[in-house]
Amino acid sequence: METQTIKSLSQRFMNVRDLTMKLVQPLETEDFIIQSHPDVSPPKWHLAHTTWFFERFVLKEYFENYREFHPKYDFLFNSYYETVGPFQPRHQRGVLSGPSIQDIFQYRSFIDNYIVDLLEQHEESKSEQTDKIHSLIEIGMQHEQQHQELILMDVKYNFFVNPLHPVYKESKSTASQKREPTFHTYDGGLVEIGHNGDGFAFDNEGPNHKVWLEPFKLADQPVTNGEYLEFIEAGGYQKPYYWLSDGWNTVKKNDWQAPLYWSKEDGEWFIFTLGGKKKLDPNEPVVHVSFYEADAFSRWRGKRLPTEAEWEHAARDLEINGNTMDTGHYHPAATKQTAGSRMFGDVWEWTASAYSPYPGSKPLEGALGEYNAKFMCNQMVLRGGSCATPQEHIRNTYRNFFPADKRWQFSGFRLAEDAL
Amino acid sequence: METQTIKSLSQRFMNVRDLTMKLVQPLETEDFIIQSHPDVSPPKWHLAHTTWFFERFVLKEYFENYREFHPKYDFLFNSYYETVGPFQPRHQRGVLSGPSIQDIFQYRSFIDNYIVDLLEQHEESKSEQTDKIHSLIEIGMQHEQQHQELILMDVKYNFFVNPLHPVYKESKSTASQKREPTFHTYDGGLVEIGHNGDGFAFDNEGPNHKVWLEPFKLADQPVTNGEYLEFIEAGGYQKPYYWLSDGWNTVKKNDWQAPLYWSKEDGEWFIFTLGGKKKLDPNEPVVHVSFYEADAFSRWRGKRLPTEAEWEHAARDLEINGNTMDTGHYHPAATKQTAGSRMFGDVWEWTASAYSPYPGSKPLEGALGEYNAKFMCNQMVLRGGSCATPQEHIRNTYRNFFPADKRWQFSGFRLAEDAL
Amino acid sequence: METQTIKSLSQRFMNVRDLTMKLVQPLETEDFIIQSHPDVSPPKWHLAHTTWFFERFVLKEYFENYREFHPKYDFLFNSYYETVGPFQPRHQRGVLSGPSIQDIFQYRSFIDNYIVDLLEQHEESKSEQTDKIHSLIEIGMQHEQQHQELILMDVKYNFFVNPLHPVYKESKSTASQKREPTFHTYDGGLVEIGHNGDGFAFDNEGPNHKVWLEPFKLADQPVTNGEYLEFIEAGGYQKPYYWLSDGWNTVKKNDWQAPLYWSKEDGEWFIFTLGGKKKLDPNEPVVHVSFYEADAFSRWRGKRLPTEAEWEHAARDLEINGNTMDTGHYHPAATKQTAGSRMFGDVWEWTASAYSPYPGSKPLEGALGEYNAKFMCNQMVLRGGSCATPQEHIRNTYRNFFPADKRWQFSGFRLAEDAL
Amino acid sequence: METQTIKSLSQRFMNVRDLTMKLVQPLETEDFIIQSHPDVSPPKWHLAHTTWFFERFVLKEYFENYREFHPKYDFLFNSYYETVGPFQPRHQRGVLSGPSIQDIFQYRSFIDNYIVDLLEQHEESKSEQTDKIHSLIEIGMQHEQQHQELILMDVKYNFFVNPLHPVYKESKSTASQKREPTFHTYDGGLVEIGHNGDGFAFDNEGPNHKVWLEPFKLADQPVTNGEYLEFIEAGGYQKPYYWLSDGWNTVKKNDWQAPLYWSKEDGEWFIFTLGGKKKLDPNEPVVHVSFYEADAFSRWRGKRLPTEAEWEHAARDLEINGNTMDTGHYHPAATKQTAGSRMFGDVWEWTASAYSPYPGSKPLEGALGEYNAKFMCNQMVLRGGSCATPQEHIRNTYRNFFPADKRWQFSGFRLAEDAL
Repeated sequence: METQTIKSLSQRFMNVRDLTMKLVQPLETEDFIIQSHPDVSPPKWHLAHTTWFFERFVLKEYFENYREFHPKYDFLFNSYYETVGPFQPRHQRGVLSGPSIQDIFQYRSFIDNYIVDLLEQHEESKSEQTDKIHSLIEIGMQHEQQHQELILMDVKYNFFVNPLHPVYKESKSTASQKREPTFHTYDGGLVEIGHNGDGFAFDNEGPNHKVWLEPFKLADQPVTNGEYLEFIEAGGYQKPYYWLSDGWNTVKKNDWQAPLYWSKEDGEWFIFTLGGKKKLDPNEPVVHVSFYEADAFSRWRGKRLPTEAEWEHAARDLEINGNTMDTGHYHPAATKQTAGSRMFGDVWEWTASAYSPYPGSKPLEGALGEYNAKFMCNQMVLRGGSCATPQEHIRNTYRNFFPADKRWQFSGFRLAEDAL
Repeated sequence: METQTIKSLSQRFMNVRDLTMKLVQPLETEDFIIQSHPDVSPPKWHLAHTTWFFERFVLKEYFENYREFHPKYDFLFNSYYETVGPFQPRHQRGVLSGPSIQDIFQYRSFIDNYIVDLLEQHEESKSEQTDKIHSLIEIGMQHEQQHQELILMDVKYNFFVNPLHPVYKESKSTASQKREPTFHTYDGGLVEIGHNGDGFAFDNEGPNHKVWLEPFKLADQPVTNGEYLEFIEAGGYQKPYYWLSDGWNTVKKNDWQAPLYWSKEDGEWFIFTLGGKKKLDPNEPVVHVSFYEADAFSRWRGKRLPTEAEWEHAARDLEINGNTMDTGHYHPAATKQTAGSRMFGDVWEWTASAYSPYPGSKPLEGALGEYNAKFMCNQMVLRGGSCATPQEHIRNTYRNFFPADKRWQFSGFRLAEDAL
Repeated sequence: METQTIKSLSQRFMNVRDLTMKLVQPLETEDFIIQSHPDVSPPKWHLAHTTWFFERFVLKEYFENYREFHPKYDFLFNSYYETVGPFQPRHQRGVLSGPSIQDIFQYRSFIDNYIVDLLEQHEESKSEQTDKIHSLIEIGMQHEQQHQELILMDVKYNFFVNPLHPVYKESKSTASQKREPTFHTYDGGLVEIGHNGDGFAFDNEGPNHKVWLEPFKLADQPVTNGEYLEFIEAGGYQKPYYWLSDGWNTVKKNDWQAPLYWSKEDGEWFIFTLGGKKKLDPNEPVVHVSFYEADAFSRWRGKRLPTEAEWEHAARDLEINGNTMDTGHYHPAATKQTAGSRMFGDVWEWTASAYSPYPGSKPLEGALGEYNAKFMCNQMVLRGGSCATPQEHIRNTYRNFFPADKRWQFSGFRLAEDAL
Repeated sequence: METQTIKSLSQRFMNVRDLTMKLVQPLETEDFIIQSHPDVSPPKWHLAHTTWFFERFVLKEYFENYREFHPKYDFLFNSYYETVGPFQPRHQRGVLSGPSIQDIFQYRSFIDNYIVDLLEQHEESKSEQTDKIHSLIEIGMQHEQQHQELILMDVKYNFFVNPLHPVYKESKSTASQKREPTFHTYDGGLVEIGHNGDGFAFDNEGPNHKVWLEPFKLADQPVTNGEYLEFIEAGGYQKPYYWLSDGWNTVKKNDWQAPLYWSKEDGEWFIFTLGGKKKLDPNEPVVHVSFYEADAFSRWRGKRLPTEAEWEHAARDLEINGNTMDTGHYHPAATKQTAGSRMFGDVWEWTASAYSPYPGSKPLEGALGEYNAKFMCNQMVLRGGSCATPQEHIRNTYRNFFPADKRWQFSGFRLAEDAL
């Protein structure tokens, strides 16, 4: 924070806010309202909730005499902060026609103006309060970036369940080539992982700490559709031997036969993308698999998933660069022949690690302590960012997390094994 | 049918179609999309389904070389006609953002033009086919009138669950006076009920047939909010003694304490209406009660509900006239001191009769046989029409029906007892 | 009641009680405990509940200074009498290992002795209280007879779900012959049905009252397995056209392909009986079908089910005689060539009538008013008694009732049609 | 294995088998049958399943010409080995009355004789097969010890839900004294945990491997009822602030107000034990809490749970000794003033660690690979053994595991914190 002027924070704030609006530009009014699954939220809700975050945690705390935009918005747009107060149940976000989209657009402008105003008021100041405000706005921006990815995830799901299969953004398929993975060996030993405090990080990324790693090998690219298809064709979804117990129960209960968004028509495989339905490209990374599927595939291949410490150690010196949201492609791309280790972008990579607190970690104080810490149970860590993640949101230490059965995020995986 | 010219059918058709559009005029685009409960449907769906009904059962059958408006609409807007083909599951009608409202408006115009065109083609004809077409268009109009009432029911529910409590149409409360019910005695004997074939009736209303009735008494007005409040205050919702077994289980499972749309704030009762939240008027008929509540109240009062034969016999010679949709009030009104027996309008009245086929009845042939007959199990009959029913849709022989636990329709009840 | 001495009542009481004990003689201790479905109850529970009925409604009310057998039995063995107090939830009857079977046998003897004692005390008396006691004991005996049938139903279900398929009582299959049904015509008109007050009847069977019947025809035997098999082979379970809406949903949800207890192995049909698994006999009445299946079959055959008034009118002058529990066969038997109209025994016959109160009917006072009246919703009437019903329990006016989707009772049906 | 003669293995086998029979001695036939919750199994099932384990994995593989005891037992008594074949669903284990208890006793004797016979056949041999047999019998014994604890857990639950509250084994309460916990400091560093291969261990306990630990403190006794009561009285169950998100949802959904088996009557707390209902002793370790409750209490106290590596490191040099199943007390006991660090017995202690494979670990081959590995997701590790664990079953490296919401195991916890 200390290396940037207040001006630039204000500018970065508006950039993030504008990007969100740009992402929803292709949507019709009708598209903003629906919630086609309890896990997804209406785009309208994302627009309002990210705005409420700034109102509730910045303006209501630090803008003198601030009067809230609407007395019911605390209830409507609080996501899960129990300590803030009661809220609309998550699975009921799609039953609300009002407030209208126009109301929400006004809400966004209203709050944006106040935040910019607040930042100007504190331009000259160097107080502890100014630091706190800057810090909260930074969190709010990171928070909004997370919801930018969620907007793409949720629109994709909403469009998928509609028999009309609407297209979010036209895209062209490009020719791709098959590339075999290479397994790099890492010596391990007593290494350090976790955020060291330079620049922004979420409370769950630190502190930097020592971990002992045995020697291991890691593939230099994620598993592809073509490789995954071999698993399907080998009867992977019919053989309990490869599956975790909870995974096998999930497969049977939901009658899973393939990753989410795959369909087979007349013997040919298709996938649904934000650019519409496409023929499956065997060279693209497989995406929209659950942890259970990633784990079962790995066992079938005689490999395993990397731990998050292995992953972070291997990625420590790599440049953060790849097929992220910034490319506008919104879909994983086949790895080029000449690529090095691709560890950022394309797909979030499931790791073998349950989401737990790091040694010595401290959650944020107050309501924001609920941001990350309270989910540290029954979730698995994913690393690396996806084609739907803003590039500047990605960090080597970034810990994404989802329950093991979720698939609507852009999730794939990379193979690892012990180096003997 | 025989008493009207084709011109007038075309005119009546357009009147019905226009009324539907008028009913949705107060809605924002957002309001058309949502489905806040599996029982309600999005207004957009009602607009499209009623249109599909004409397309599927009239145009596709009788308009030469007709080409369908959209190949997926058969799937999207079929409600429950299994013999027509598969359809979007009822509880999933609200997960579809597209087609847009504008698409549906176009769909309506497109079909309207074809139907008017078809009627003109047949203007001079007297064929059996012409009769069939007229008959199907008449059913389609009656069908659309049912969905007009459903639009009001469903918008009311959607608006109710929204903490912003939107208003569909502003309304003024007017002063009312208390009026005690009078019980009229009917001799019974071998009477006739059921439709005798003059004018339109649904297949479930006929044939006219003999029924033996013991002497009975019937109240000349529905039970009021004030009377129902006495039941609540007497602990009616806490005493299993008054309830059917299924009713008591429903009360406990849903923690019912009062009719739907009632709320108590600071000791005062309010109800939610299409005109917003209002103070409870004790003189208005109670509305939005389930069969279970109507039955429990009756037992508590030492009375019973009338059978549908008793109801129809008592109403046989009354003029169809009352507080129907046509008044634009969309809410039951207190009975005036000078009123006679009010049996039409205000509230659908639960009867003691399960919904069963009449002796000698025949369902319509083909898919339309599914219209009514397949629901003749686990439903109770309601009679008389409500403040949300188009007046010309109401008949003395009309049999409405709902499962015993449903409350979102405008349902109330009237007391009866044996005359000894 | 007035025609029998107290001695004979005492004797009849002990006969009923002994018969119950005889029915459970083939069971192992383990068999008494289990509840393999929420609808069935452990045999131990039936033994105790029928005993509790006498304790609670007779001894606690009329035996001076009676001290209850165990303070928890009111909670454990009350079935559904809300006005008596709280009770063990129905679906949780099988989680209780204690009290032991021996405790329950002692409980039965204890109560039997008291009841016989009470009857002796009142031997000479002619008081109103004596009448009341006799009347309650009569109800208790009828109640126990109902549970005798339930014991057979529940043991059959419990044994069926066990992969070891235990046999309750060995039975021999006997050769049978095909017999075609004859449809008898009845003129109808203004007839009387319902119990006229002579001898015992439940409160739901009266009063005797007038009903108008149109002319109708009724088959002289129930539908057979062979006829039902034609429906299956004609794709009856795959065609929604024949089914009620709730019925079709039930078929799909449960993946019904045949009646309960039917299985197909290597192209051959088998049924599970209390005598073990047998080859399907096409000449036996079909049994263990739901109302939905009976109704769908009838529609497929171009017929319908009789109303309960039609059924009772047709059976009015027939002798109560047939394949009842008393034959010890516990399974429906093929109709003999020379038989007349078989309307009693073999299978309970679904009627087209929902279970509703008769005009002028009055439930019993107090807690026993809950016995029948509170179930008069969402149930269909069955008539005639089955191979598991004690013969002396069957009456022409007897109204059995089950929800439309239940199949574990011995239920079949007989076809009717309008006589034009 | 190599250090013991075959004789002694045979002897140890019979000791384990006899202990199981001794544990069920207090049960009535009725008690063997019931399953009062999907998580618990009928004692009969435990007796049979542990026996089946030896039949299926030893006799069927290694006893020449072995003929199975019963062809259906593979289906009935397989627990979850998908690769062995289909099995009776877990939640349906309590719907089977047969086979009878006597059948199962015979099954046990039958298998015992064969196993002893097999061991004698191999007495002189030193083949690889002999090693394999010995190894499988050892696993089978360990497996049976786990089911011995399950029998106590399940009987306790079954007895608890019975309003008669039966007593498994009478026990006397003894006076206890309050003892404050002392926090010991451990330096951490690069330590080793995991089984090193000497003596038996499950596949999930190894291999021995390096882990880096930061300095930490650990309480020398588990949290007591008295301490936990302070949390309850401070409104712990009403304040989401202390809870994991999944934990808070669990609390609300189940309306948890206290640990399992606690009840409050007239202002006084009681707990249900295998010795019946007792007054709560504030000095005993709290038991039957979920991971969520352990975690919430720790956060409320400003502490945390130890990781399993911290726990194992702290316990490494302690003697395995304590209040285990061997004391016959079957209930946690208050820590004596003079006690050292009590880490074995009394209660299984929840750790902060999710159940994951150790680096370099290998599941057993074949069906037994399903024993532990397939549960390594959505479960938390518990350490130390309980008052229901056979003492010889406890190891310092032993990893028990349960989902975070389970409470019917004898689970408590111990506090830890960072040492700064």
